[in-house]
Amino acid sequence: MNIMTKTIKVIVVNFLMLPMLVFMSCENHDNSVQSGTNSSSSHPSLIITKQGVRDIRANLGSIPVFDETLATAKAEVEAEMATGIDVPVPKDFSGGYTHEKHKKNFLVLQKAGVLYQILADEKYAKFVKEMLFAYAKLYPTLPPHPQTRSYARGKLFWQALNDANWLVYASQAYDCVYDYLTEDERAVLENDLFKPFADYISKESPQFYNRVHNHSTWGNVAVGMIALVIEDDSLLQTALYGLKVDNLTSDMKDNDGGFIKNKDGKAGFIANLEEPFSPDGYYTEGPYYQRYAMYPFLIFAQALHNKKPALHIFQHKDSVLLKAVDALINLSDADGDFFTLNDAQKGMSYYSSALVSAVDIAYYYGGNNPELLSIAEKQAKVTLDDAGLSVALAIKNGKAKPYQKNSIELSDGPNGADGAVGILRRENIELVFKYTAHGLSHGHFDKLSYLLFDEGKEVVQDYGLARFVNIEQKGGGNYLKENTTWAKQTVAHNTLVQNETSHFGGEYEVASKHHSEKYLFDIKNKDVQVASAKESNAYPGTELHRTMALIKDADYPNPFVLDIMRVSSEKANQYDLPFYYLGQIMQTSFEYSKLETPAILGASDGYQHLFKEAQAKSNGEMLQFNWLLKNKFYSYSAVTSNNDEIILARIGANDPKYNLRTDPTLIIRKKATKNTIFASVVESHGTYNPVSELAINAYSHIKNIEVVYDTKDYTGILIETKNDKSTVFVISNLSNDKDTEHKITINEKELVWKGPFTIKTL
Amino acid sequence: MNIMTKTIKVIVVNFLMLPMLVFMSCENHDNSVQSGTNSSSSHPSLIITKQGVRDIRANLGSIPVFDETLATAKAEVEAEMATGIDVPVPKDFSGGYTHEKHKKNFLVLQKAGVLYQILADEKYAKFVKEMLFAYAKLYPTLPPHPQTRSYARGKLFWQALNDANWLVYASQAYDCVYDYLTEDERAVLENDLFKPFADYISKESPQFYNRVHNHSTWGNVAVGMIALVIEDDSLLQTALYGLKVDNLTSDMKDNDGGFIKNKDGKAGFIANLEEPFSPDGYYTEGPYYQRYAMYPFLIFAQALHNKKPALHIFQHKDSVLLKAVDALINLSDADGDFFTLNDAQKGMSYYSSALVSAVDIAYYYGGNNPELLSIAEKQAKVTLDDAGLSVALAIKNGKAKPYQKNSIELSDGPNGADGAVGILRRENIELVFKYTAHGLSHGHFDKLSYLLFDEGKEVVQDYGLARFVNIEQKGGGNYLKENTTWAKQTVAHNTLVQNETSHFGGEYEVASKHHSEKYLFDIKNKDVQVASAKESNAYPGTELHRTMALIKDADYPNPFVLDIMRVSSEKANQYDLPFYYLGQIMQTSFEYSKLETPAILGASDGYQHLFKEAQAKSNGEMLQFNWLLKNKFYSYSAVTSNNDEIILARIGANDPKYNLRTDPTLIIRKKATKNTIFASVVESHGTYNPVSELAINAYSHIKNIEVVYDTKDYTGILIETKNDKSTVFVISNLSNDKDTEHKITINEKELVWKGPFTIKTL
Repeated sequence: MNIMTKTIKVIVVNFLMLPMLVFMSCENHDNSVQSGTNSSSSHPSLIITKQGVRDIRANLGSIPVFDETLATAKAEVEAEMATGIDVPVPKDFSGGYTHEKHKKNFLVLQKAGVLYQILADEKYAKFVKEMLFAYAKLYPTLPPHPQTRSYARGKLFWQALNDANWLVYASQAYDCVYDYLTEDERAVLENDLFKPFADYISKESPQFYNRVHNHSTWGNVAVGMIALVIEDDSLLQTALYGLKVDNLTSDMKDNDGGFIKNKDGKAGFIANLEEPFSPDGYYTEGPYYQRYAMYPFLIFAQALHNKKPALHIFQHKDSVLLKAVDALINLSDADGDFFTLNDAQKGMSYYSSALVSAVDIAYYYGGNNPELLSIAEKQAKVTLDDAGLSVALAIKNGKAKPYQKNSIELSDGPNGADGAVGILRRENIELVFKYTAHGLSHGHFDKLSYLLFDEGKEVVQDYGLARFVNIEQKGGGNYLKENTTWAKQTVAHNTLVQNETSHFGGEYEVASKHHSEKYLFDIKNKDVQVASAKESNAYPGTELHRTMALIKDADYPNPFVLDIMRVSSEKANQYDLPFYYLGQIMQTSFEYSKLETPAILGASDGYQHLFKEAQAKSNGEMLQFNWLLKNKFYSYSAVTSNNDEIILARIGANDPKYNLRTDPTLIIRKKATKNTIFASVVESHGTYNPVSELAINAYSHIKNIEVVYDTKDYTGILIETKNDKSTVFVISNLSNDKDTEHKITINEKELVWKGPFTIKTL
Repeated sequence: MNIMTKTIKVIVVNFLMLPMLVFMSCENHDNSVQSGTNSSSSHPSLIITKQGVRDIRANLGSIPVFDETLATAKAEVEAEMATGIDVPVPKDFSGGYTHEKHKKNFLVLQKAGVLYQILADEKYAKFVKEMLFAYAKLYPTLPPHPQTRSYARGKLFWQALNDANWLVYASQAYDCVYDYLTEDERAVLENDLFKPFADYISKESPQFYNRVHNHSTWGNVAVGMIALVIEDDSLLQTALYGLKVDNLTSDMKDNDGGFIKNKDGKAGFIANLEEPFSPDGYYTEGPYYQRYAMYPFLIFAQALHNKKPALHIFQHKDSVLLKAVDALINLSDADGDFFTLNDAQKGMSYYSSALVSAVDIAYYYGGNNPELLSIAEKQAKVTLDDAGLSVALAIKNGKAKPYQKNSIELSDGPNGADGAVGILRRENIELVFKYTAHGLSHGHFDKLSYLLFDEGKEVVQDYGLARFVNIEQKGGGNYLKENTTWAKQTVAHNTLVQNETSHFGGEYEVASKHHSEKYLFDIKNKDVQVASAKESNAYPGTELHRTMALIKDADYPNPFVLDIMRVSSEKANQYDLPFYYLGQIMQTSFEYSKLETPAILGASDGYQHLFKEAQAKSNGEMLQFNWLLKNKFYSYSAVTSNNDEIILARIGANDPKYNLRTDPTLIIRKKATKNTIFASVVESHGTYNPVSELAINAYSHIKNIEVVYDTKDYTGILIETKNDKSTVFVISNLSNDKDTEHKITINEKELVWKGPFTIKTL
């Protein structure tokens, strides 16, 4: 302590000499502390390392992104230091004071620890120490959290999940001040706080800890992180491989309706790494939860890399953790917002702090891909450790290259065999086609659904989740009941609903057993990119086969989407295909009649949340629907059959608390039909400028669409433009072999081609 | 011609010598042409002048904003030249091909003329000549436009208004190529095109031409511009002072329901300048139409300044045209979007080309106000003439200063005595309070209404117009019938509706006779800015007195709005006060019950377009309504009386063509009441970040609001914050004299103050 105080005085003398002096002061301090403690101790070593500290200090002041992040962290921590430490008795849900305070505390703890290492200013260590001691005093007195909603309550927070968050961050802080503390002080913290804390979220909460689920990942990592800091190998074993005894039964469910016990009895960090990630790095819950999970996965991997290099964690499962970072970036739109697959809040993006560490870690430990640097540049933040330093230095040295997001198929399932997400990209258009597995408890019943983006703006939307995360006014910031009754239901998505019943009867148990089947993902020809998949379990006895193509054609101002949904059933059904356009109706080719007042569309499976506003009957001609969104004109052109119903509806029925957004939809309904084809084209064709008041290309370029071939072997769709060009797209329904030759005759013209599809101008 | 060709060759030789050579070439050309024509001719002289051309050429290449605008114009004109001239037989409404083509043509004509002068390249003059001759060939063959909807049809366009637009621009083009043409060529153009064109929109369309209205302004200016080019003084007289004979009768109306004949029989440009502009430069139709009118007003003023300097047009009516430019900028939000008062489309802004010329002209002819330069910088465009050059040079020389938008009251009426718009500004908050005259045929029935903006985003909205300007799909891009049945009605605004009837019974004839009365506009104390006004004609027998204050108080994160609407009537009525918040409901202090399906709120006066979604009865306590808009939290806290009805409603009923936006509103309804006070506070208090998922300051800071004093003399409102600070605001209802002393007792405390209001912490 004495030496530390002295060196601080020296630092004040000459600011210009800071880096070197700081370095010296730390060495001195380390020595002094080490002499009084276990001589084998080597901290920090978890995330920021001793070598990292030396390198950072040597570069401080000349690495702009790092320096700015550091200045922000310093300001934030010092503001908290000025406010004074508050470790309140837990009481509130997310959004409430005690929740937000404890959350703020762990974030600040971690930052203060890092600041102590980087700036070698004892005040930060003192602050960490005092706050940890405040927790060590409070924690032993705490019963489970008074809010009882969660299937696994924490003590500081209403759910153990948040307690695990706390420990992941606090462990890092502890590692940074480890050598600053005396052995006695460490004994108090470990015995009164860290060990009981780890026990509570593991042994005492097996329903939380011993699963394959993002909750458990946090739990495993929390325990693993503190185990690495205090070098407790038996604790580390439970973190890596789960509890040996958990007394969980196979019928237990969490608050989201997800099963708790893994079907193969797997648990622990390694299982959580193997099971939910596909070989392509896709996380089965979807990008929103992947983003949430990335932080614990990567931070623990980083710690394991530093402390247990023999595990080769970054190389595990063919480097799946590093692939996951690229997968996640590819699962974002042009603005960096993640596609809302399954439960997902809109607006979450790769600007999230979880992605800052993910990108930095992937860069540092994953081969220095210069494209990651351009994402880091946009983030304008780095982690304050070895990885962040390497990114900041590389950016400074001009190594960044633009991140190229291309069309990509990301398989789902531990072995990549459980379907996939197909993303087709061309110019301003991004099409996301989902033919995955269910996605655990956050999955939606939306087999073969899709989303469409134009310049990063959602045009044909996925509703996302029904929740206002951390907004206390709305159900404590937690999932709202409309998430189950609306957001997860099939009719809330851009996919087919049979007999007003959700896929798999809306039953999670059933849905979890199945996945869609990839049929085709072909992006070789950039002008005609095709993804196709089949689903035969969502409605037993009915097969759905959807083919989506993103086509670039000089006759159209932008790439357009061709969508072919082929339905074959053993019996006659009602089929609804909703189309969740966003924006204002401009014009329709059909005459609709608006109801005097909206009527509730149905009784259950999400239909109870839709208001029918208007209806029309098809005369068998192509339906054309023209709308305006954010000063762009779009058209939806769809084949219809005589007497198809066209329903214009809006979300918001049976919503007593205004929990839902009142977004519109168009539904094509076919009654008493066994086999049919829904074929349509979506175009982004024009713009409106409210300043010049000029409307450009306000109309669709399409004159007609027709199903010109329809057998069990082939489906052929003819698209006729207003300048009289006819193009036919044919897909082979039974053979996706790329070398098989096909020959059929359409409109008296013989088409011959090789492979599963063809497109020809007639 | 020969000399011109030669000099062009010279120009090619050495690009670096361009400015000087171009200059020489032009001089030569001018001389050559002048020698073959009327020697007294001096063109161009209308907008761009001979001296201007010399100065521009001398600076070309070194004036960034000007150079960029020129390059854009060049690219645009050359693209049109490459496409070839098309002067189609008129057929379509706005948005349709012939309409848009003729519109494009006049814009390109004007630019090509200017390019000819600046770049001295004959190809532009040739292009202008050929297009004008195509028009001269077509025009004499044309009947009135085949679309018959307008009260004053044009020949090229469906309304004479657009024909006038054409002539305003074509006159400028003609001026630029005047000397390039032979006398014979000019004779053809003048006799076959310009003179009959001018006659058609004036003598032959008196209902269009001889009014005080923005349409007539365009008509007068069109005729005046061509009169100045061809130096026809008798034509100029009708432009300046109107037609002597018009045969208009006092019951004639235009398509908007506006009276055609001016009540004092005034007409012509000067009358149009005097009547609609207040001495503060406010244009009675509102900023959207002021923006539209600014171009003809200022372009003609510029032409008159150049050709008839003795008129001193810029000094007319105490320089009202120059003041109007500042008024208009002040009528825009922080992003430059105009406040939607009366008929107005959202998104129109000072980025409009009309404002580019307005700003440049005001700078050049109005004393070189450096704050205008910062607007010009944002516009990143200048006019390609003397004024634009002066702006570009000043920007280049670093003279720009930030434009300071402060709180301001802009009087309405020719003498400034017909009410006003009061704009209160503080930090991120802008409050627009409307107590004007009706605003001619584009006026809305919304006495004492208000709009609220936060960082340039509309928070408490005015609906604007029901029209999709120039979007052909929507009623030919013209006004929709819902503009009359909804947008103009009182209930579509944030002001009081008595007995479900619009102000003045929704009768334009009655509304036009009245205006609200300014009571108070006091912005001396920046922390308590107050605007107050009265309205006693909207509902005969009922007096409305609304006081709005924008208050900055350290206890609140942002300035908040206090709104006091005092109603006194001779008889009992139903009073509705709608509050058009934008965003999603988070929480309410009152229990509402949602209707199973929405019900139409009323039968007429706009109520037929509202769906009632939910209702509540007040228990007499303060109502608090908390909502989220674009990641910001807002609260509306309002005093209610026992049994007040609270209605949550949404626009969209009786809207068979989806012409309306489905925006929400909250209505406080008091039944069978004579005198009452609606008092409320609107706060912008918090933020949500969807990336960090942090909600900050999600709740109102207000614990209670109460009417603590209510006599005919004074109204006192008490505001209590959650940290137990009580503040009382008192307004004197009868004396707005700033020196009168007042003394009252509230809650046993004596308040003594001087002037119409006071605010005190109790």
